[in-house]
Amino acid sequence: MSLARLLEYGEAPPEVRAVYDDIMQTRGVDWVNNFWKALANDPAALKRIWENVKQVMAPGALDPLLKEMIYVAVSATNGCEYCTYSHTAAARRKGMTDGMFMELMAVVGLANETNRLANGLRPPVDAQFKP
Amino acid sequence: MSLARLLEYGEAPPEVRAVYDDIMQTRGVDWVNNFWKALANDPAALKRIWENVKQVMAPGALDPLLKEMIYVAVSATNGCEYCTYSHTAAARRKGMTDGMFMELMAVVGLANETNRLANGLRPPVDAQFKP
Amino acid sequence: MSLARLLEYGEAPPEVRAVYDDIMQTRGVDWVNNFWKALANDPAALKRIWENVKQVMAPGALDPLLKEMIYVAVSATNGCEYCTYSHTAAARRKGMTDGMFMELMAVVGLANETNRLANGLRPPVDAQFKP
Amino acid sequence: MSLARLLEYGEAPPEVRAVYDDIMQTRGVDWVNNFWKALANDPAALKRIWENVKQVMAPGALDPLLKEMIYVAVSATNGCEYCTYSHTAAARRKGMTDGMFMELMAVVGLANETNRLANGLRPPVDAQFKP
Amino acid sequence: MSLARLLEYGEAPPEVRAVYDDIMQTRGVDWVNNFWKALANDPAALKRIWENVKQVMAPGALDPLLKEMIYVAVSATNGCEYCTYSHTAAARRKGMTDGMFMELMAVVGLANETNRLANGLRPPVDAQFKP
Amino acid sequence: MSLARLLEYGEAPPEVRAVYDDIMQTRGVDWVNNFWKALANDPAALKRIWENVKQVMAPGALDPLLKEMIYVAVSATNGCEYCTYSHTAAARRKGMTDGMFMELMAVVGLANETNRLANGLRPPVDAQFKP
Repeated sequence: MSLARLLEYGEAPPEVRAVYDDIMQTRGVDWVNNFWKALANDPAALKRIWENVKQVMAPGALDPLLKEMIYVAVSATNGCEYCTYSHTAAARRKGMTDGMFMELMAVVGLANETNRLANGLRPPVDAQFKP
Repeated sequence: MSLARLLEYGEAPPEVRAVYDDIMQTRGVDWVNNFWKALANDPAALKRIWENVKQVMAPGALDPLLKEMIYVAVSATNGCEYCTYSHTAAARRKGMTDGMFMELMAVVGLANETNRLANGLRPPVDAQFKP
Repeated sequence: MSLARLLEYGEAPPEVRAVYDDIMQTRGVDWVNNFWKALANDPAALKRIWENVKQVMAPGALDPLLKEMIYVAVSATNGCEYCTYSHTAAARRKGMTDGMFMELMAVVGLANETNRLANGLRPPVDAQFKP
Repeated sequence: MSLARLLEYGEAPPEVRAVYDDIMQTRGVDWVNNFWKALANDPAALKRIWENVKQVMAPGALDPLLKEMIYVAVSATNGCEYCTYSHTAAARRKGMTDGMFMELMAVVGLANETNRLANGLRPPVDAQFKP
Repeated sequence: MSLARLLEYGEAPPEVRAVYDDIMQTRGVDWVNNFWKALANDPAALKRIWENVKQVMAPGALDPLLKEMIYVAVSATNGCEYCTYSHTAAARRKGMTDGMFMELMAVVGLANETNRLANGLRPPVDAQFKP
Repeated sequence: MSLARLLEYGEAPPEVRAVYDDIMQTRGVDWVNNFWKALANDPAALKRIWENVKQVMAPGALDPLLKEMIYVAVSATNGCEYCTYSHTAAARRKGMTDGMFMELMAVVGLANETNRLANGLRPPVDAQFKP
């Protein structure tokens, strides 16, 4: 059903295997999920996106769990099925409880509601909000 | 420019003033932003949405700053100008630094990118991600 | 600021003038709004889109006011500034009151909220909802 | 497959059962759809969202069928599968015929098209459209 | 599962068959895909949309393969499952290779990322970009 | 109005200047647009995003003009004002004529329309479209 062939480890060229190895080692798992297997049809893109993910999702001013929850918020807003499943699973591995997940969804729902009230009513941005 | 008249405090009926008072008291400010003044054309909706905001954004399993940053993530994803300004300002009041804001944007950007890679390549959801 | 030159009546070729004339006559107004002037850079597209609008927005199983309100609902959901202004104005000309506009916005807001709750929580579609 | 456990009536705490009872009674049906069962993991959110739905979708300046059709328009625009099925079913129960459904879709499609023509061509909003 | 009955050739009225025939002849295939069978519940809409597709997707200033790839880009951005499958298949028939598809997806992903960085950071449009 | 300070060349640290220099040299221009000046508040993100843009937009299986037009298609679909202006300007510099721009918009508009017809009517994906 995938629109790009899923490239398995056994058939992958060395530069793809190197990324797969890094994904598994970084995450402490022994498998690679389908997103990367599809992206591997373009080895340069595979490496580029993975390096982006590693850099962006690393601990920094925000902690990794919070980042993962932001990822879920965006994915649910966009209606991306694959991403909602994969990043919700990732957030749970990093400690997101049922209660945190439900509150996250409540904020996502409310933000989507008031975004459209603002888009429809079109109040001007208050001077106090401008930096 | 607003598509709904902005209802000022001085001309508002008592049930609208009551919500305005609660907004100002809850936030510790002495002004009401334009979003609420536009929504006040429907006093029942004004009260309903404000009660939703108060319930959803209150401290719970997630802290208020994190919730405000999720709000910004959704607003930037949807391209809502008013909401991006107002909730970024709110997040800054609650302690979001420049560094936190830039990392938040980096996650939002990346999530929007990989959402579309998944939507376009259509890899099946891995069994391991299903609860 | 427009990314396509706005083609004024006086400088337009005959096939563009013919569409402008039909727009003004159909709507009972003596001016053409900027959307059409931008689209007129491609006369075939101008004619095609206008014919689509006339066919779709004509009275049928749904009345024109209801159709115009659906147009506003979609435009606010998508955050299209031009379309929100133009179709809200059109809906008001067709009889949409302040009260109707505020209720329309309330439904649009709520639908956007529950759309994301469903997209995030991912409940399976109930068998009862399938035709 | 749901990312939140579906809470069945028999295992639900009293405050959840109370909402389920109200849903069934208000709608005159003897079952609760999966959306609410997923949301019930957060009883306060369940009650809040249901109260919102009851208030917003009640007869007012707009009739309930029109409101349900606006809900379908937003759900199709956002590509929310669950919501498109559930609200189309609800609209049909309230009297939407095949002919009305097809015209609704025609307006939704056209609005999404011209929204992007306006977003891409960027004509300025005409002064006549500003209230 | 379709929300509109799929109208098969054998049961279709003459005006629908005429469009089906034109679709098959124009594309050089001997079957009609489900999108059109669903749309056929409104014969006027079927004819209108098909005429639009023929006019817009014909060779012109842009070649048909490029147009088909733009269609895929929009469909992946919107997360439309049906359209992503159907237009990717169409683009492949017109000559899109694996390498072209993967590069297309890379651009779509990146554009969605920087769109949100711009929507969140809100830099003013540079004077140099204004026509 | 920008939510992040625009970092000018004269005040930028060396690692930011290095990216600015590369942007100007790669594009053959003597100025840096505001998007990068806002992103420069996070020098690592600035460098990362710029390297992504250089890799993705370089000539490959698709030519740079086609890639730039895909960028415009995505930006108009998402309603990103900044990106629509900046990438339309970039596409014009690379040779996009008025006629090509108008045809691009026609495809973008039509794709957004049929995306929603498919999302609303929900025809099943034809077996013939599955790879």
